[in-house]
Amino acid sequence: MSTAVPTSPKAGKGAGAEVGIALLGYGTVGQAVYRLLTENTEDFTHRIGGPVAVRGVAVSDASKPREGVDPSLLTEDAHALIARDDVDVVVEVIGGIDYPRELVLAALNNGKSVVTANKALVAAHSAELAEAADAAGVDLYFEAAVAAAIPVVGPLRRSLAGDKVKSVMGIVNGTTNFILDAMDSTGASYDDMLAEATRLGYAEADPTADVEGHDAASKAAILASLAFHTRVSYDDVYCEGISSITAEDIEAARTAGYVIKLLAVCERFTDDAGVEKVSARVHPTLVPRDHPLASVSKSFNAVFVEAEAAGRLMFYGNGAGGNPTASAVLGDLVGAARNKVHGGRAPGESTYANLPIAEFGDVRTRYHVDLHVEDRVGVLSEIASKFALNQISLSAVRQEEFNEGARLVVVTHEASENDLAATVDAVKQLPAVKSVNSVIRLEGE
Amino acid sequence: MSTAVPTSPKAGKGAGAEVGIALLGYGTVGQAVYRLLTENTEDFTHRIGGPVAVRGVAVSDASKPREGVDPSLLTEDAHALIARDDVDVVVEVIGGIDYPRELVLAALNNGKSVVTANKALVAAHSAELAEAADAAGVDLYFEAAVAAAIPVVGPLRRSLAGDKVKSVMGIVNGTTNFILDAMDSTGASYDDMLAEATRLGYAEADPTADVEGHDAASKAAILASLAFHTRVSYDDVYCEGISSITAEDIEAARTAGYVIKLLAVCERFTDDAGVEKVSARVHPTLVPRDHPLASVSKSFNAVFVEAEAAGRLMFYGNGAGGNPTASAVLGDLVGAARNKVHGGRAPGESTYANLPIAEFGDVRTRYHVDLHVEDRVGVLSEIASKFALNQISLSAVRQEEFNEGARLVVVTHEASENDLAATVDAVKQLPAVKSVNSVIRLEGE
Repeated sequence: MSTAVPTSPKAGKGAGAEVGIALLGYGTVGQAVYRLLTENTEDFTHRIGGPVAVRGVAVSDASKPREGVDPSLLTEDAHALIARDDVDVVVEVIGGIDYPRELVLAALNNGKSVVTANKALVAAHSAELAEAADAAGVDLYFEAAVAAAIPVVGPLRRSLAGDKVKSVMGIVNGTTNFILDAMDSTGASYDDMLAEATRLGYAEADPTADVEGHDAASKAAILASLAFHTRVSYDDVYCEGISSITAEDIEAARTAGYVIKLLAVCERFTDDAGVEKVSARVHPTLVPRDHPLASVSKSFNAVFVEAEAAGRLMFYGNGAGGNPTASAVLGDLVGAARNKVHGGRAPGESTYANLPIAEFGDVRTRYHVDLHVEDRVGVLSEIASKFALNQISLSAVRQEEFNEGARLVVVTHEASENDLAATVDAVKQLPAVKSVNSVIRLEGE
Repeated sequence: MSTAVPTSPKAGKGAGAEVGIALLGYGTVGQAVYRLLTENTEDFTHRIGGPVAVRGVAVSDASKPREGVDPSLLTEDAHALIARDDVDVVVEVIGGIDYPRELVLAALNNGKSVVTANKALVAAHSAELAEAADAAGVDLYFEAAVAAAIPVVGPLRRSLAGDKVKSVMGIVNGTTNFILDAMDSTGASYDDMLAEATRLGYAEADPTADVEGHDAASKAAILASLAFHTRVSYDDVYCEGISSITAEDIEAARTAGYVIKLLAVCERFTDDAGVEKVSARVHPTLVPRDHPLASVSKSFNAVFVEAEAAGRLMFYGNGAGGNPTASAVLGDLVGAARNKVHGGRAPGESTYANLPIAEFGDVRTRYHVDLHVEDRVGVLSEIASKFALNQISLSAVRQEEFNEGARLVVVTHEASENDLAATVDAVKQLPAVKSVNSVIRLEGE
């Protein structure tokens, strides 16, 4: 288990020394990074303590014309670029996992510090990358991997380094927030608002990674690892997307005073046996309308942190886009380059707490269960008894006429996923229950 | 003019080395710092890379019994404590200016890194302190000086180090936000809500520093300095408090769709002659009700940052109190102690941009002008002509019957302070104008 301790503090190159940059990738983010870096050279020189020079830009096809970049800098041989003696910091903004992993490892093993915006890579391979950075005594920065321009990694690593984080809840995917917010404000269906998001460029042609929560799950893994000083990887995150959320769910949420958000929820808790554990999960979540996360609209992101001494903090802003992502990448680049000039290292991976990751069935939250039932005497009592049998107490019950029967909405107090699942199974068996319309978790009260 | 470049990178003591702490002050914050530090020793050891030990706690009267601290650590001789060879980091949480200045300078000159929560000290003497830190090659941290637990200094210094900040607007004083929020939600008077704030412990016995904006002005100076890489001191900040805000002002704001907040506003702008300048000011401000700062209630703080690439960011949380302040102090302590163990320095003062500070009269904003006028034909035209004479265009006008006359509310487009002041003077001279009820600035649209 590695710790926050750098293994080999490095001497700097000395004030005024030039720092060589290799830029891997020239998509939207790469272009913004290159443009801002070359437009503001004097600012960067002052902030770093020496000039920066881009040694090369690795792309898949160097013959293709690229706007804004000196063509002589383009190369298809990323490995050769990384290996150059005059490259100190490698910026990876390619995306994907396998190829960038290979390049980032090559860079770290070569003694170059790395700045990456790649959440999928960091969430899948953090241990391997952190160990390579530690072995070489260099920095691995990834502020842009979570919520783009919003400083979250830095505050968790540094500002809260003297505190104990209890939970992190975030809206960390702009596409899904845009869709859910549009459904909430228009009453339209998921499919229509996904189409709108695609039309406006908020959703990709294949929106799976966003709408099924995979992108948010990568970010949840990164947030939980930082917050709890414990390695949490993508595979440890329970993940449920928003594609099954209906206009009726949104309407029911509104009636009950909630809004539905796709949240990444990371928690530290003590289980029944007194063992401290952590969990990370991503799922559609009911949030009270007066909670700060409820008013995060459109494609904005926000991360809500609760720490023992600090109390509740929220960080809000643009969670995607070329310029906002470049802002975070360039902040990291200044940090990495500064350390190359002046010596010292950024805080590395910190996994000393090494808390066990809870089984998802042991995670506790509250639930909003929406049922279609027969409209006759005794139904409520039959259903309520199933909740009681599993020791789940109810905080609210609402019944209304619906579709030749009744709609029954039950809001529970805190219960475990296992107990809730057993209850829903039992309720489904009841002859009086026509269907379970939805089960949505509830946070923030 | 000093730059961000540390003058002498220091080698670390080596992993595992003990870091000695001198704690100056044992009030609410000092007690929280001491308690959290001694309760979580193992966490701090892991996060720093070596154990921390509190060498002593300087207080004004060491014979007075103090809860929670080993009495043998108490001393009245702060200078002797600071000078000890086994002290590496000095934490200053005394408050005031002259005595802590003397101690912090002694510490820095002695090669100790300093963590302070003292906004008044940093805002009044940042240049002197930064030069002493640079000369000795040590760190000066002050995250807790602005908005306590909310990470603001770190994000401006590090996360946004690759971006250009355009403006920072913040609710950075909890006492005044509590009073204004209470006036807004109850309709009560300033005096009644100040009394309520005092009763609940949100306001001090002498509330002058809070309600007259002096505390917020210190924070504005610190924020502007960090944001614009320019030295802005307390004396450079225009400052107006909330004691003249009436229940009628709050009600008028509500009618027009605004809420009144005491804002610290720091801006970078280009003047008519094409010169880039900065300004920092604190005053009651109308904020549209749908602006993120409008919903910051009670004694919470929030800082809204606009940067060229990142766009709009907001940081929200507890801006005061023992534990939240201690959280920020301890985050800084981990950073300073880590550098003592592993070598390296935090980014120092960065003033390379050295932008001129605008004359307050040249600052441009919008205004909400509330007049009591005679109710007769031609009055509006007479008043409007005074605005037009000074090239101020109007965005909204509202007139209603009032007190044997009319109340006329004028909302302007952007205008300079000089032009607005000249207009108000001219308007006051009009026989038809009985009184100028209030002039309140407007931001956030």
